[in-house]
Amino acid sequence: MATKNIESMIKALSALDCTDMYQNDFLLTWDKKADEIGATFVVAELLRALREKGISSRVFDSGLGISIFRDQSTRTRFSYASACNLLGLAVQDFDEGKSQVAHGETVRETANMISFMADVIGIRDDMYIGKGNAYMREVSQAVAEGYRDGVLEQRPTLVNLQCDIDHPTQSMADMLHLINQFGGVENLKGKKIAMSWAYSPSYGKPLSVPQGVVGLMTRFGMDVTLAHPEGYEIMPEVEEVAKANAKVGGGSFTRTNSMQDAFEGAHIVYPKSWASFSAMEKRTDLYGADDFDGIDALEKELLAQNAEHKDWTCTEDLMKTTDQGKALYMHCLPADITGVSCAEGEVEASVFDRYRVPQYKEASFKPYVIAAMIFLAKMQHPAETLEQMAENGMPRVFG
Amino acid sequence: MATKNIESMIKALSALDCTDMYQNDFLLTWDKKADEIGATFVVAELLRALREKGISSRVFDSGLGISIFRDQSTRTRFSYASACNLLGLAVQDFDEGKSQVAHGETVRETANMISFMADVIGIRDDMYIGKGNAYMREVSQAVAEGYRDGVLEQRPTLVNLQCDIDHPTQSMADMLHLINQFGGVENLKGKKIAMSWAYSPSYGKPLSVPQGVVGLMTRFGMDVTLAHPEGYEIMPEVEEVAKANAKVGGGSFTRTNSMQDAFEGAHIVYPKSWASFSAMEKRTDLYGADDFDGIDALEKELLAQNAEHKDWTCTEDLMKTTDQGKALYMHCLPADITGVSCAEGEVEASVFDRYRVPQYKEASFKPYVIAAMIFLAKMQHPAETLEQMAENGMPRVFG
Amino acid sequence: MATKNIESMIKALSALDCTDMYQNDFLLTWDKKADEIGATFVVAELLRALREKGISSRVFDSGLGISIFRDQSTRTRFSYASACNLLGLAVQDFDEGKSQVAHGETVRETANMISFMADVIGIRDDMYIGKGNAYMREVSQAVAEGYRDGVLEQRPTLVNLQCDIDHPTQSMADMLHLINQFGGVENLKGKKIAMSWAYSPSYGKPLSVPQGVVGLMTRFGMDVTLAHPEGYEIMPEVEEVAKANAKVGGGSFTRTNSMQDAFEGAHIVYPKSWASFSAMEKRTDLYGADDFDGIDALEKELLAQNAEHKDWTCTEDLMKTTDQGKALYMHCLPADITGVSCAEGEVEASVFDRYRVPQYKEASFKPYVIAAMIFLAKMQHPAETLEQMAENGMPRVFG
Repeated sequence: MATKNIESMIKALSALDCTDMYQNDFLLTWDKKADEIGATFVVAELLRALREKGISSRVFDSGLGISIFRDQSTRTRFSYASACNLLGLAVQDFDEGKSQVAHGETVRETANMISFMADVIGIRDDMYIGKGNAYMREVSQAVAEGYRDGVLEQRPTLVNLQCDIDHPTQSMADMLHLINQFGGVENLKGKKIAMSWAYSPSYGKPLSVPQGVVGLMTRFGMDVTLAHPEGYEIMPEVEEVAKANAKVGGGSFTRTNSMQDAFEGAHIVYPKSWASFSAMEKRTDLYGADDFDGIDALEKELLAQNAEHKDWTCTEDLMKTTDQGKALYMHCLPADITGVSCAEGEVEASVFDRYRVPQYKEASFKPYVIAAMIFLAKMQHPAETLEQMAENGMPRVFG
Repeated sequence: MATKNIESMIKALSALDCTDMYQNDFLLTWDKKADEIGATFVVAELLRALREKGISSRVFDSGLGISIFRDQSTRTRFSYASACNLLGLAVQDFDEGKSQVAHGETVRETANMISFMADVIGIRDDMYIGKGNAYMREVSQAVAEGYRDGVLEQRPTLVNLQCDIDHPTQSMADMLHLINQFGGVENLKGKKIAMSWAYSPSYGKPLSVPQGVVGLMTRFGMDVTLAHPEGYEIMPEVEEVAKANAKVGGGSFTRTNSMQDAFEGAHIVYPKSWASFSAMEKRTDLYGADDFDGIDALEKELLAQNAEHKDWTCTEDLMKTTDQGKALYMHCLPADITGVSCAEGEVEASVFDRYRVPQYKEASFKPYVIAAMIFLAKMQHPAETLEQMAENGMPRVFG
Repeated sequence: MATKNIESMIKALSALDCTDMYQNDFLLTWDKKADEIGATFVVAELLRALREKGISSRVFDSGLGISIFRDQSTRTRFSYASACNLLGLAVQDFDEGKSQVAHGETVRETANMISFMADVIGIRDDMYIGKGNAYMREVSQAVAEGYRDGVLEQRPTLVNLQCDIDHPTQSMADMLHLINQFGGVENLKGKKIAMSWAYSPSYGKPLSVPQGVVGLMTRFGMDVTLAHPEGYEIMPEVEEVAKANAKVGGGSFTRTNSMQDAFEGAHIVYPKSWASFSAMEKRTDLYGADDFDGIDALEKELLAQNAEHKDWTCTEDLMKTTDQGKALYMHCLPADITGVSCAEGEVEASVFDRYRVPQYKEASFKPYVIAAMIFLAKMQHPAETLEQMAENGMPRVFG
């Protein structure tokens, strides 16, 4: 895949079994087979290669990509809009508000009402543990029923744009970045990646990024180390996924409470703040009970707990302990940079600056990853279609 | 029309005179001739049939569909966006706010400023009696003048997405649903439809749904019964329309103050809350006078009046009194369902549940009805164009 | 250019050197050479002519036009959306809020994050003196670097939709209106245009309109008179631009503190309120220092100063003093009309009314001007491409 040769990528795609992706959703990376993950990467690379050659990837003459963002978002919104536009879909935002009240009847009805001409529905719902992914599955079931009952003339595909459990468009973009940086997925075998908690002045960032990373990166034979202070555990079921994946993929999954241990000899480091799973569970329960005093008290407690770990930060000194002192620094952005965006944060400014361009490149894969997810769900013969597109060579811009 | 055969539908369309729809608006169903109403149904069915066959209906290579929603809306917004997208138009929202202050100069100027490249303008303005439809006519006149004066290179078409008087996209979708459920418009002759007021905890729902229904359904030989408690009269001029239509169409229009009488032997029931016309008129005047204390007092009075009619609800017992106990239940959604969305509402949960799929189908016609309204206003030779589209068979999705 | 003949316009375009516009931004009219300004007018006219003939100008099969509005806007938003749609771009709004805090790191990062598939970025940022244009240049540099570093697969073009210094899409539309009203640019030589301050109840309108007008109109041999009460000076560097332009263009640039003098014998009048430069500078500094009491005090002072100049208004009597009493009245809209939108304003209602249609026409050029700016930045061979488009004659609307 390191070669950007279009023909060879199409050939590689033909060899992969992605039949089950057709008319299906993309909700969790660990629901997808190795071939399906691989196909997503190849299609993303192919769409990027076509775009860079000025060839149109517009497979939809018309059609809608619905977006449901239950949380403010710029990056993901633009990545989704870009992916939809690349394929020819117009974006229509559905603004449901930030409440967590929509359930059952309302979800079923609304899902149908917004889907009469929807090809894709992208959802971001990462605010409450136990809610986001469940909501996506409710919507998915509703539109599947709507299609079965003849209400909808097609079954719209769901793409998880971040939930409480996984952030597949992020982790897949991260992984594609690694594949490109290391010159091929085969070169990642045995490489050590440190997914580490880091201090940030805010205490409640989603767990979906670290969970997505350990759930996905363990599949490629890497040595994945998850580091965090006590009390910042991720969801136990995702740890189980990581362990099982590591076994199958021939790598390892290790947990440590020391950032130093994680960075020691690492080839890749991903220092990032997140909330503790148990705290987020408590918060969800308090919201459910409308206990706003309880929430206030919890938030104060979490901030105090947080402040005890300001030493979890990605310094130049720490970076020196990584493999040849040159580990690849990663972040999903925006980062909390010490002395820039906050007094004390996740990373020292000089480290962040040195890796600015690679980070931007990391982010640049997201629109193509989302487009690939849509493409594989909507095209029955993805390799043939891409071959046709490459052959036709229809220019994206006239003139 | 029951047959979905594309050829025969195009032939049926050719036989209808829809010349006056070209370059015209769609504001009230009763402004339209029988042929024009019929043409709208056929074109909606044709566009749906093409879509279901995967054939593109994109007649616009580029172009804008402006939306003006002076009230919050999800369903109508998505229906309009879907219709525009189906035909190739991009939607651009104009957010004028919810005030009722825009008049005269401002309307004329704004209408021109947003219309330089507008093919269609869809407006929803149902908040104030005497205002919404009048506003649409002001906009329509402004853009007609703008076109005549050489300001605009085309005359954008207006589509009424709900006003104080009519809700043509809803009533037309409702009617198309009936045509499909009963296997053809000819089978609706002599059928009894009960458009009935029903209790809801909120008191101020628009009158445009019941008005639209009695204004339209009376044209097809149905026995239309409008039922409501005393004090919940609809606009007298719309009752006159219904009476006149019934006379021409060979059916009847009856008013009653008994929900039981209306349901008795009905083939179709449409129980739904609405505000009283005189109360809404009073409210509009109070708003005009900025009399917010008066509005508060009025609202309290209306809620008290409302609460006296909790027995106006669509129960299983009432449903048993309809034709064979199996009348088709209709609602424009969202419904106030007893024990689900409110303690006491318009309909019992078991009735609503039994008709969930038909209701979703009812709603599914709206995007096609809107698209048909636009199509007939923008295409000089709609039958020929549809024939060409069917023949070309350009796939909506490549691959 | 007065002739709308497509062939002759394409020929005229071929003779102009617009090589440097390719892959470049449009930020200030005085950064552009005479040929480039001329090319923009010709392309705008050509795009309008094609549109009026029903020929598609869709050069983008897919692609995004990002909009960043740091101030509320209806007209400019619709003009930009229309221009993007005309060329085939979908608009994606980036809502950064109204703060002036975004700087440095944040701007660089955000600019890249929203630009992965951006062909164009249109920015309106006119709120703070010294900020808007600087912000645009920061964004421009960031995306140029992103392109150079391989983050972006293309360099998105920036279009200034109004900043603190210039309002090029407005002044270019104004000029194109004049060219059309006077039957050709050559007929504007020696014509007197009065860009005059006028009273409005609000005191803080942007300076970019008068600055844009004197910065541009002085290039065509016109006698440009800038009139305002003492204390309402525009930015001194823009006055210098106007003087230098007048010298090159063979016209003149005069400043006066008398509205009467300015109107005397004028062929064109442009009476409009604006804030004083020094006051806006003070306000920017107070905002920078979070001195909200200071801002309040300044605003009161400005309103008081403002109220001393209610006699600066475009009356019928004043209009009589213009050339043959028939000067062309211009405004960027919306105007403050005495007795209509305010008690005392910029213009008497009867004057405004008489020039309503010309004003709407003036505004109608803006979408085409914006489209021309984009076209010239994105097409390497604009004349050839337009020739091809005219030849192909691909209809915008099918049927």
